[in-house]
Amino acid sequence: MLGMALTAAGPDAGVDEVLLLDASPGVAQESLERGAGHRVSASLDDALSADTIVLAIPVDEIVRWLHDHGASVGAGALVIDTGSAKRGVVEAMRRTVPGHAHSMGGHPVAGTELPGPAGADPARLAGATFVLCAVRNDPEAAARSRALAQAAGARPFELDAGEHDRVIARTSHLPHLAACALATVAGALVEGGGDAPRLLASTGFAGATRLAAGDPTMVSSFLRANAREVSAALADLAAELALLGRALEDADPAALEEALAAGRASRRAVG
Amino acid sequence: MLGMALTAAGPDAGVDEVLLLDASPGVAQESLERGAGHRVSASLDDALSADTIVLAIPVDEIVRWLHDHGASVGAGALVIDTGSAKRGVVEAMRRTVPGHAHSMGGHPVAGTELPGPAGADPARLAGATFVLCAVRNDPEAAARSRALAQAAGARPFELDAGEHDRVIARTSHLPHLAACALATVAGALVEGGGDAPRLLASTGFAGATRLAAGDPTMVSSFLRANAREVSAALADLAAELALLGRALEDADPAALEEALAAGRASRRAVG
Repeated sequence: MLGMALTAAGPDAGVDEVLLLDASPGVAQESLERGAGHRVSASLDDALSADTIVLAIPVDEIVRWLHDHGASVGAGALVIDTGSAKRGVVEAMRRTVPGHAHSMGGHPVAGTELPGPAGADPARLAGATFVLCAVRNDPEAAARSRALAQAAGARPFELDAGEHDRVIARTSHLPHLAACALATVAGALVEGGGDAPRLLASTGFAGATRLAAGDPTMVSSFLRANAREVSAALADLAAELALLGRALEDADPAALEEALAAGRASRRAVG
Repeated sequence: MLGMALTAAGPDAGVDEVLLLDASPGVAQESLERGAGHRVSASLDDALSADTIVLAIPVDEIVRWLHDHGASVGAGALVIDTGSAKRGVVEAMRRTVPGHAHSMGGHPVAGTELPGPAGADPARLAGATFVLCAVRNDPEAAARSRALAQAAGARPFELDAGEHDRVIARTSHLPHLAACALATVAGALVEGGGDAPRLLASTGFAGATRLAAGDPTMVSSFLRANAREVSAALADLAAELALLGRALEDADPAALEEALAAGRASRRAVG
């Protein structure tokens, strides 16, 4: 997605050439065909000699890449990623990327539940928040990262990695788990057979569970990379559901109405 | 919404005139202006002398209307409702509507989170499931209800009221509670101030919490009318979230990936 936006942005936005490298050559080729870059490279040396290296892979693979290759990033190069959990990535960058290079934790908040090139739509980046989490006090890393985000049409937003992880646990990671749990609970009805579950699932159900359509490997990767905050958010959710359950059984209907009204107000405040 | 579809269907579909009656005259007038009927009536006698009486109000008000006026439904008339919890409505119809009339529990599964005329879009009824829950063994009630559902463009689906409530608790009512709880958990971030929650809430968050935008009075009404099944579904959800929480902290990443893959498969099976 980012590759498509940067390739489209072109030299006027400071993007001369976008090289594509993927562990699966087929995926790199498909990305190339969708306009996500100018050429495919199978050479890690190509990537390591680029001006800017964008790690757009699952979070655990980003960390592994940094451990394996971070020390080989050349002088003056910028390494940035697109993972949705930032603390571990930023720590790995701090440990592995040498001082002669630049690094930045990045998270374009413009996801889709579809993995790989098929789910990529650069229009989603237009006006989207592109979180930038500083690795070191490095004004050049900040300036070049902001320029990259802007070249992709997004809005750079600088945020501490820990604060990013605390917030994203509740605005994105927890909703993924809730969608999965809702789908599983409804899915248990299907085992009993009959058409009713399918016929009684409306657009409301589809919307509430859309995030459950995500690629399990990718989703598991960012959830585990942010496990501490996600666990805390899960506890908050369980407490809130228990409160709603008590309100549901309260003799006074006002309790449930008030809880629902508070949820609606919260959604407006966040959304 | 049903009024708009039936008014548009017209005499060819057996709809000669749609009368609008609302406790709030302003709402009835707004519905009329949106094409939901041919004229507004302020007279309960008008409604009671109609061939078909459609109770399109919150579930608790449906039950109250039946207790207050069900016994006055005229000979040969059909009473049907559009509430999303059916057991209590069907029981109230059985107790109150006289044997010279007909009654049917109805639920067009085509909701929107917006209440009243503003949220009504008759296109949502096209091809939608219109659940019909029998009150008595009454072939005429069944035939006329099917015809009404079809006139609105929907697909009639006959289902036991208890089974409807068991399924809809998991495909609709529980997702409403989950959306509210997710919104509340994320909303707590906003209290701390700062732009991060708003900037980090993507379309994924908006989709996962869309049902929290529903009218608290209407939502509370159907949740409470289906409290027993919703409570059971809440317990299922809590158990599933606890299982996901344990998988998240499992040393083996396969546990979480498998749970996410199962959720994705369930969503496909239901959706």
